[in-house]
Amino acid sequence: MAQVKAIGRKLAENAKMINSFLTRELSGQEPESLEKASLHLIKAGGKRLRPYMTIKACEAVGGRAEDAVPFAAAVELLHSFTLVHDDVMDHDDLRRGKPTVHKVYGMPMAILAGDLLFAKVYDIMVNNRPPGMSPERLLECIDKVTEATMILCQGQALDISFPGASDVTVNDYIYMVGAKTSALFRACAQVGALVGGGSDEQVNAIGIFAWDAGVAFQIEDDVLGVTADEETLGKPVGSDLREGKKTLINIHALENATEEQRKLIDRAFGVEDASHEDIEAAVETLEEVGSIAYARSVADEYITRAFKSLNVIPDTPTKEELKALVEFFVKREY
Amino acid sequence: MAQVKAIGRKLAENAKMINSFLTRELSGQEPESLEKASLHLIKAGGKRLRPYMTIKACEAVGGRAEDAVPFAAAVELLHSFTLVHDDVMDHDDLRRGKPTVHKVYGMPMAILAGDLLFAKVYDIMVNNRPPGMSPERLLECIDKVTEATMILCQGQALDISFPGASDVTVNDYIYMVGAKTSALFRACAQVGALVGGGSDEQVNAIGIFAWDAGVAFQIEDDVLGVTADEETLGKPVGSDLREGKKTLINIHALENATEEQRKLIDRAFGVEDASHEDIEAAVETLEEVGSIAYARSVADEYITRAFKSLNVIPDTPTKEELKALVEFFVKREY
Repeated sequence: MAQVKAIGRKLAENAKMINSFLTRELSGQEPESLEKASLHLIKAGGKRLRPYMTIKACEAVGGRAEDAVPFAAAVELLHSFTLVHDDVMDHDDLRRGKPTVHKVYGMPMAILAGDLLFAKVYDIMVNNRPPGMSPERLLECIDKVTEATMILCQGQALDISFPGASDVTVNDYIYMVGAKTSALFRACAQVGALVGGGSDEQVNAIGIFAWDAGVAFQIEDDVLGVTADEETLGKPVGSDLREGKKTLINIHALENATEEQRKLIDRAFGVEDASHEDIEAAVETLEEVGSIAYARSVADEYITRAFKSLNVIPDTPTKEELKALVEFFVKREY
Repeated sequence: MAQVKAIGRKLAENAKMINSFLTRELSGQEPESLEKASLHLIKAGGKRLRPYMTIKACEAVGGRAEDAVPFAAAVELLHSFTLVHDDVMDHDDLRRGKPTVHKVYGMPMAILAGDLLFAKVYDIMVNNRPPGMSPERLLECIDKVTEATMILCQGQALDISFPGASDVTVNDYIYMVGAKTSALFRACAQVGALVGGGSDEQVNAIGIFAWDAGVAFQIEDDVLGVTADEETLGKPVGSDLREGKKTLINIHALENATEEQRKLIDRAFGVEDASHEDIEAAVETLEEVGSIAYARSVADEYITRAFKSLNVIPDTPTKEELKALVEFFVKREY
């Protein structure tokens, strides 16, 4: 799959372009503390998968990439805004290997920076309507982005309300991942297709594609959490276990482990100071129960569904890039 | 001034209508905790001055009130969102005499509720375009609201960056009040005039009117803080003094007091446990320095300017209602 290999380079080029757009948009604000706080996470890096999705969705329906750039930047800001606020809510100290915004600038400034980023999403969209795009279409873009944000808030609220893996079922998990990850992926793709002049059918189909891809993406994240090594993960292996996190693997294991297996898992699950050995034994048990294989099979199912949705999109190199993007980020090696 | 007297009743009717619209819009959300948190502040009351401004601005340029109702509700949500987040940032326990959202539902849910309210602002606007309103006009409304939010964030960031009255000048104060209060007032009026089909000149003029009225409103708030009694204030008299707050009165006094006067003020200024006597002596000194009279004169100046801006609006009963609104809320007795 040469496409999958090429995507690393394409993503890097895309990230450069999006970063320079965003730096320009957010620079020169008063006071300086707000400017710095709102740029902090943007500068911390990130793959810019969402903007890439927007631009490729635009091209896939026959649109021009340059028309989609501001919208791609806007959806990245939306993503940033939710991360900045999530980190405040979760009291997280690190994000992308760097101190979080509230760690550096304090909680009040982090909340404000998030609010500003959110407002900027709309500011950028409203003021960058490409020539030839109708105002109705732009309103549709605004509607899609807004809808995604409302769903995201609901997903995060659910997440807060049910903190442990033992509180939720596999169905709850899929629902929550949909809200927390897929809703925004869908909006990214829909907005791209809207900017690119796609038909309603295409906008809809590419949105479903992105939704399903988002689910697969999140599940793969769970899998990497127990299979990748610390260096590639950027955090200790098994921290999802230690934190008792609601990953598909953990939920499946709690539902399907024998009493014996459960005991081994419980030595690490939700145990903050679990030893390296306890973690290893628990991960082995997750393998035994079949929870990791199960998660992988669910992710595969979602990828298959995602690809099927693209049938209404013409066969072009861009369509292959969209597929390669999914394969890259689901099978990514950090 | 029968108009001013009548305005209390009109505001009450308006509040009822806006409240029922907002309750409908925010009800039925999942999870219930998010619904409750996002409705909490709305249910705590409030005069709904901003929605009233929107509706009257719409009517003043010849539009129908019913067209403006969703937009009026949206600007109130924007106001609510900023208050919910401000209370988290400032660790405030009470708002409108009720426990703040984060006090009841916790910090994470309060941040989320604020984010949801903000998203809802756009959701309501995009999905309630009145018949006959062009999509371009709706985009202008979205632009005005977004601009106001960005300015609000900047104002709040400035406020956080310069916490004490001794850090700022009168000019800084006016700038900050513009950002923290007037920008949203202006957007409320502009959006109303846009919905009502006002000319560019009218939209602009009514926006300046609202901006200046907002400054007068905030200054009057400062004045009431040292002249009204505790019952009408809903908080202890002189708490602005105790907190060392950046009110126009305090800033003027710090700049103009004699050494002797300054000593008397300093017994209360920024002194959390200042006695009732110290507060009384400090307030008397503020009178002596002329700071209260000064603040009143600045507020009057802004009202005069505000009224002048309305010259391009036809003379109708609605125009009188707009003026009465300003007189009511600047000379209001709580």
